[in-house]
Amino acid sequence: MTRSKTPTLDQVAGPPDLRALSDRQLRTLADELRGEVIDAVSQTGGHLGSSLGVVELSVAIHAVFNTPMDKLIWDVGHQCYPHKILTGRRDRMDTLRQKGGLSGFTKRSESTFDPFGAAHSSTSISAALGFAVGRDMGKPTGDAIAVIGDGSISAGMAYEALNNAGHEGRRLFVILNDNEMSIAPPVGAMSSYLSGLYANEPLAKMRSLAEGFEAALPAPVRDSARRARQMVTGLNSQGTLFDELGFDYVGPIDGHDMEQLLTVLRAVRGRATGPVLIHCCTVKGKGYAPAESSADKYHGVAKFDVDTGAQQKSKPSAPSYTGVFGKTLTDEAARDPDIVAITAAMPSGTGLNIMADRFPARVFDVGIAEQHGVTFAAGMAAAGLKPFCAIYSTFLQRAYDQVVHDVALQGLPVRFAIDRAGLVGADGATHAGAFDLSYLCSLPGFTVMAASDEAELMHMVATAVAHDSGPIAFRYPRGNGTGVAMPDRGEVLEIGKGRVVRQGRDVAFLSLGGHLTETLDAADLLAADGLSATVADARFAKPLDRALVAELASQHDALVVIEEGAQGGFGSMVLHELAASGALDNGIRVRCVHLPDRFIDQASPAEMYADAGMTAQDIAGAARSALGLSDKIVKLGKAAG
Amino acid sequence: MTRSKTPTLDQVAGPPDLRALSDRQLRTLADELRGEVIDAVSQTGGHLGSSLGVVELSVAIHAVFNTPMDKLIWDVGHQCYPHKILTGRRDRMDTLRQKGGLSGFTKRSESTFDPFGAAHSSTSISAALGFAVGRDMGKPTGDAIAVIGDGSISAGMAYEALNNAGHEGRRLFVILNDNEMSIAPPVGAMSSYLSGLYANEPLAKMRSLAEGFEAALPAPVRDSARRARQMVTGLNSQGTLFDELGFDYVGPIDGHDMEQLLTVLRAVRGRATGPVLIHCCTVKGKGYAPAESSADKYHGVAKFDVDTGAQQKSKPSAPSYTGVFGKTLTDEAARDPDIVAITAAMPSGTGLNIMADRFPARVFDVGIAEQHGVTFAAGMAAAGLKPFCAIYSTFLQRAYDQVVHDVALQGLPVRFAIDRAGLVGADGATHAGAFDLSYLCSLPGFTVMAASDEAELMHMVATAVAHDSGPIAFRYPRGNGTGVAMPDRGEVLEIGKGRVVRQGRDVAFLSLGGHLTETLDAADLLAADGLSATVADARFAKPLDRALVAELASQHDALVVIEEGAQGGFGSMVLHELAASGALDNGIRVRCVHLPDRFIDQASPAEMYADAGMTAQDIAGAARSALGLSDKIVKLGKAAG
Repeated sequence: MTRSKTPTLDQVAGPPDLRALSDRQLRTLADELRGEVIDAVSQTGGHLGSSLGVVELSVAIHAVFNTPMDKLIWDVGHQCYPHKILTGRRDRMDTLRQKGGLSGFTKRSESTFDPFGAAHSSTSISAALGFAVGRDMGKPTGDAIAVIGDGSISAGMAYEALNNAGHEGRRLFVILNDNEMSIAPPVGAMSSYLSGLYANEPLAKMRSLAEGFEAALPAPVRDSARRARQMVTGLNSQGTLFDELGFDYVGPIDGHDMEQLLTVLRAVRGRATGPVLIHCCTVKGKGYAPAESSADKYHGVAKFDVDTGAQQKSKPSAPSYTGVFGKTLTDEAARDPDIVAITAAMPSGTGLNIMADRFPARVFDVGIAEQHGVTFAAGMAAAGLKPFCAIYSTFLQRAYDQVVHDVALQGLPVRFAIDRAGLVGADGATHAGAFDLSYLCSLPGFTVMAASDEAELMHMVATAVAHDSGPIAFRYPRGNGTGVAMPDRGEVLEIGKGRVVRQGRDVAFLSLGGHLTETLDAADLLAADGLSATVADARFAKPLDRALVAELASQHDALVVIEEGAQGGFGSMVLHELAASGALDNGIRVRCVHLPDRFIDQASPAEMYADAGMTAQDIAGAARSALGLSDKIVKLGKAAG
Repeated sequence: MTRSKTPTLDQVAGPPDLRALSDRQLRTLADELRGEVIDAVSQTGGHLGSSLGVVELSVAIHAVFNTPMDKLIWDVGHQCYPHKILTGRRDRMDTLRQKGGLSGFTKRSESTFDPFGAAHSSTSISAALGFAVGRDMGKPTGDAIAVIGDGSISAGMAYEALNNAGHEGRRLFVILNDNEMSIAPPVGAMSSYLSGLYANEPLAKMRSLAEGFEAALPAPVRDSARRARQMVTGLNSQGTLFDELGFDYVGPIDGHDMEQLLTVLRAVRGRATGPVLIHCCTVKGKGYAPAESSADKYHGVAKFDVDTGAQQKSKPSAPSYTGVFGKTLTDEAARDPDIVAITAAMPSGTGLNIMADRFPARVFDVGIAEQHGVTFAAGMAAAGLKPFCAIYSTFLQRAYDQVVHDVALQGLPVRFAIDRAGLVGADGATHAGAFDLSYLCSLPGFTVMAASDEAELMHMVATAVAHDSGPIAFRYPRGNGTGVAMPDRGEVLEIGKGRVVRQGRDVAFLSLGGHLTETLDAADLLAADGLSATVADARFAKPLDRALVAELASQHDALVVIEEGAQGGFGSMVLHELAASGALDNGIRVRCVHLPDRFIDQASPAEMYADAGMTAQDIAGAARSALGLSDKIVKLGKAAG
């Protein structure tokens, strides 16, 4: 039996064990934990850099606070791998982000140590304040601690929460995990401001804790803290921005120095009466050289070799939708100087890095600020530019009112490039692009498209460039295209016209977006049963191709409508049209295939769609059900996989 | 011929005329303009207090800046009456907020002097930055000026915009109109901070404009500015919060002092190279004693007597939904100590002032911060409390992602009290509660109710208190109830069960929410034709009462579904159910009555619903159309009004 690489970690089944360790042992624990995180993620892939940055912080918080009675809330939650290992989930880390396994984020249903789940950014302070109120109203809750990154704290929602928490004045801990790095390098004045704080001498100051607090600090911190306090005291009562929002500000402290962390956390835990912000500086990817030296600090990685850091990249069979979008828009931008693009802190995730390389002055990274980003785009559209707002489906939810109030109501020609439509795989339910069709199709004047392959995406980019009379959106899936031949340039589609891709007789399939492949496979399955299917690609959810719908409905014995989204989107558009036109009066065997009325946990996209009941067999089954045929098990054809 | 009360204003057909006036004449113009605003609003009602606060500011901005080439953007836009009078709309002020008349807000389609419309708060800085980019990219745009109140700037979106604008560094003007008053007195740490700035000596400081700027100021301002600058210069480079976000900060200045306003605006216009924030202190309701002395400063008023300030209040025929909600929740809160309530800066608009009077520690006004408010509520629910989030339908759009990501995904029992569902009257399209059914019904695990009268609202409050297994929402219209008898206490409804309110034979009406009255009227109209109608009140949009839908569909010749919302909500739920169950296979004459696919301009709610095609006659017409009868004009029965 070889000796364990992690003898201290092996003793820690959960935070109570951890709290029995000495400070020295805690430091050893952190070192072992870092190695464990690297090993675990090398086997599964995942969010490595963020997790490595908070190893010491995770240990220190669990050592000082009484979790799970104290509520620890990780903003975004992708940095929670050390936390998961420490809170009883070590033996399941090999299932991370896989079907039936651990989520890549914090999740209430997974552990009592995850009191509030996350995945979207900037929610933690609001939730923590909710727990603080619960505690003050007698609920079984101890302290509330939010850990939030410098990128996440730049979002308006976090500011709203700081503002409200400062006003409430309740005891509450916000730990600002400042690594000067969200996914991309951070932007915005707030980021410069934080850097400025960091550039100054280390500073510790707590109005409400008064002088006594400094005495509890280690000497090097204490000396500079005293100096800093003296500097600040004369300042017309102005301190940091956080002081101004009503928080006591402590920091910056070194987030990889266990002694400093433990000392400061113990001090604030012992003494705080109101809200405290602890400014903690960390290094994303800390302690793993390949991560520290990488531009994105290994934010999200595939499986990798621990010694070399080399990631296993599977060879793509077709270009990614994201890349096709980025390249196509760049080509269009070269022809049309009015094209500009907006991203909310995801230039490479959206493919806009391609355009930024060539036209840096025409790509705007607004930071994690979707609300501002959309209305900023609306302003640019009102000024006569052609803005492309590239925001994932799930994140565009954050700017829904801006889409309604600033874009749709004013009929401004903002173009929405909506990546990650439908189910997205390992990031799970929180990142599913499930709702954009339902929240956009109900908006007057909106044009809504969905791409069924990467060539279609090129056409839709071209169509959006040409469409200057109102808002237009196009959605496309995560991952790689279908491998179709690509045109040199996209062509402008006729607004509101779909296309028939296969002509049949018995059943009509009307598919919108990324499930056209599965729909064609379903047609093959039916063919094996002797049933002939027409397959149409709707292209437009809105305006609906009413003539196509009428023709498909009247010329076939059944109509099946397919969309990669929740009920209330495209299928709803078709059903309303059939009702309003009177087509339903004489009977139409119509079925809708869409995401079911539940959230789908992470797995591969194919597994998730199987879970959702949206395989080719399911689609064929819907057709058979509509035709009144028993949904017998057919022999699996080539497309049944 | 009597002498005009407004000789100077009479000379001003538009801003060019205004710019020809002397500074002394501008002051006179402002005085006349104030009287004109008071007179106009006394005839129409409207947002008086905000408009009176910016009379001088409106004159000064148009005098100094070259509108409409320079883009002036009023945040929210309800303070724009002086601006409308000055920009060619004076002769239409008597049509304000009425059908076919001027909007109560800025509106692009109304005037080139309204470059970006508004009505929801906190969008102006984002839009102004968009125009600044357009200018810098060669579009025909001059300067961009955003005027934003201290309440509006506390919203996260405004912070995101400041943060991004500070980073961009483009020339841009943000005028902070600080009246220490949004609709309710403002809350939040930001508000205290602004008050603190105001309490200090007046301060003028612009890093980029250097010393020369001070010389241009009037002497009293100049002296204190120099003193302030000296104080600030030693401050470890820390200035105001706005400096920290990258803005040059000027102020505070007296927003009713025309000389100060003109001097400062001319100085910044002449010299600014980057973003500038001008902190301008005003008094809401300024210059009209009844407004200044009123608690809400006459934020929104009915027609009133100019001499006395007495407003014409029509005697209500039934209690308002808002009041019923507030009183019912307060009664429930007296029984259940876990009930808490959240409002986003609208305690009286939502009726929560009633609960706050009795249980002040259990009502949380988070300020204009819907995103934070919803997740804060989710945190309280996770802590075991029973939060009621009372947010108007149109404003809940601002927290859509929080509803999805923090509430629905986690299945947390947050209760949403959604006032102003459907069309709302004088506030127009921007305030319509049109989309909540479509954006909520697509969310897994949500329960969605709509009240058809004020007694039903009581039942739904009680039902929401009792429903602790997941999120639940109930919507209700603006205005007064129907006058039904009220129970002592609401009863807990069976989840997912509707009720038949009239049994008929030929046609079934299935109504959700506030249009039940019109639906019953439609049944009366059909009765005059010899057609017998069943009328059901769905109560629940989700979960849908499938048995009721099946029964109505199978027992009648036609089914008409009615909802006060856009397509994609309740009707879509019913159609999907009919498709999925196979009920459509043999033919069902089904029609859906919902808001049309366009925005409806302001008018009375009844006029707006007539515009929308949702009168009792329209509903009866839908039934006749479904039955294949000609939509003949029937004799108007008692209910046809």
